[in-house]
Amino acid sequence: MNYFDYKYRVRYGDTDKMGISYYANYLVWFEAARTEFFRALGLPYTECEKQGYYLPVVEANIQYLRPSTYDDLLTVRTSVAELGRSRMRFEYQVFDSKMIHVIASGFTAHVFVDSKMKPQRVPDVVKKIVTPFILLT
Amino acid sequence: MNYFDYKYRVRYGDTDKMGISYYANYLVWFEAARTEFFRALGLPYTECEKQGYYLPVVEANIQYLRPSTYDDLLTVRTSVAELGRSRMRFEYQVFDSKMIHVIASGFTAHVFVDSKMKPQRVPDVVKKIVTPFILLT
Amino acid sequence: MNYFDYKYRVRYGDTDKMGISYYANYLVWFEAARTEFFRALGLPYTECEKQGYYLPVVEANIQYLRPSTYDDLLTVRTSVAELGRSRMRFEYQVFDSKMIHVIASGFTAHVFVDSKMKPQRVPDVVKKIVTPFILLT
Amino acid sequence: MNYFDYKYRVRYGDTDKMGISYYANYLVWFEAARTEFFRALGLPYTECEKQGYYLPVVEANIQYLRPSTYDDLLTVRTSVAELGRSRMRFEYQVFDSKMIHVIASGFTAHVFVDSKMKPQRVPDVVKKIVTPFILLT
Repeated sequence: MNYFDYKYRVRYGDTDKMGISYYANYLVWFEAARTEFFRALGLPYTECEKQGYYLPVVEANIQYLRPSTYDDLLTVRTSVAELGRSRMRFEYQVFDSKMIHVIASGFTAHVFVDSKMKPQRVPDVVKKIVTPFILLT
Repeated sequence: MNYFDYKYRVRYGDTDKMGISYYANYLVWFEAARTEFFRALGLPYTECEKQGYYLPVVEANIQYLRPSTYDDLLTVRTSVAELGRSRMRFEYQVFDSKMIHVIASGFTAHVFVDSKMKPQRVPDVVKKIVTPFILLT
Repeated sequence: MNYFDYKYRVRYGDTDKMGISYYANYLVWFEAARTEFFRALGLPYTECEKQGYYLPVVEANIQYLRPSTYDDLLTVRTSVAELGRSRMRFEYQVFDSKMIHVIASGFTAHVFVDSKMKPQRVPDVVKKIVTPFILLT
Repeated sequence: MNYFDYKYRVRYGDTDKMGISYYANYLVWFEAARTEFFRALGLPYTECEKQGYYLPVVEANIQYLRPSTYDDLLTVRTSVAELGRSRMRFEYQVFDSKMIHVIASGFTAHVFVDSKMKPQRVPDVVKKIVTPFILLT
């Protein structure tokens, strides 16, 4: 299995006056899902930072297919779609409470940098751990 | 001139522990810029809602080119890149304080719907007002 | 037991450039904790809204005792401190990962209103369920 | 005049499914107002941080008197209510678009700390600049 499922309960503050989840929140949920994905791989992101590398986002994309609303229990399915020289790409699918519909999908692309924001090669330890989980495409 | 410049001062709460603006906030700033763009066209979005049409986002994309941080005075340049049968696409460029560098760029695509989330054709009044402002591509 | 413990993992976006959780987020976590407290009482807040009553906040207070940061697993302990004619007051204590220190404490006061924001008496069903859980003071 | 008026246009994302501004946002607006208050005093908070002192919040309080909603142009009136040995207290009143009603009021208390979060005495430069603006109470 090359993905990780993160559960998220939509909060009142996540909704807007249209009664649905505000669009920027999906990026926040992607971040939380990414964090848990790393932890599940045995590579907590806090550890990465302690070792001096960071993973700022260089691109993000979301398709909003169906709305979600307060108290929905969403699942954010996260996988690694690409691991380049210094770049890493995650893909996300957000499922509704019943896990029937994909309500949103998207990706985030990241670059490994040091604490001065200078790009670095993907650390070997990351490459070793993550490679088996990369989606075949 | 077929764009609108919205100024935004980065707040403390917009930053994260990396010391830079958190990535999801750019979508929030895009929304604020869109609102002011509509107002500048003489078509406040509150009016749209009063007349029963809404513009939920169906896709969003951002390229993060350079970081921004607390107290930066950003400019979000917004334009309409496309106006389809029921669809509308905005493009955004975020400039740094000195208006020298584009620090982020992106787009959001929207669909006109009624209060029951059913897609509608672009209202004539919108088409009439917006069309002259569409970017030549 | 007259409280409910809600676990929350601090997200990257919750932090600010000081490296700690941004102060407004605690109110967001209080809301999530309140939602789970209601659910645990067998009174999901979504049900309240379906029956036409809402619980907007009329006052909020927080004491920030210690900082929290990214990836901390906090516990928000929620209890009902007061149930008046139309008013309800929740108290919160936020514990650190080890459940040793209270890092923040606060309260929110709410008024029952109908969909037109007109104050209502606390519904009997709410009174019946909540009363046994009110803290003795 | 011992206060500063900060204007804020309520964004779509600030609202929730009740159709009104979500309660945690007021703390965010307080922060933005505080930043502009400092700038107006000739003491930009970015300068404070450059000189090695920070002002984390130790307490916050808000009374919500009336709702606000999307596109409202609010005014956050900020003043300094207290300047102690190492502590500083701001008070806020949020006015509606017409500046007729106070829709929310509150305060935030802060402590001056160094970059290691150790409390410091209020810097002389701050004391000198801020003292004339303290509200008589």
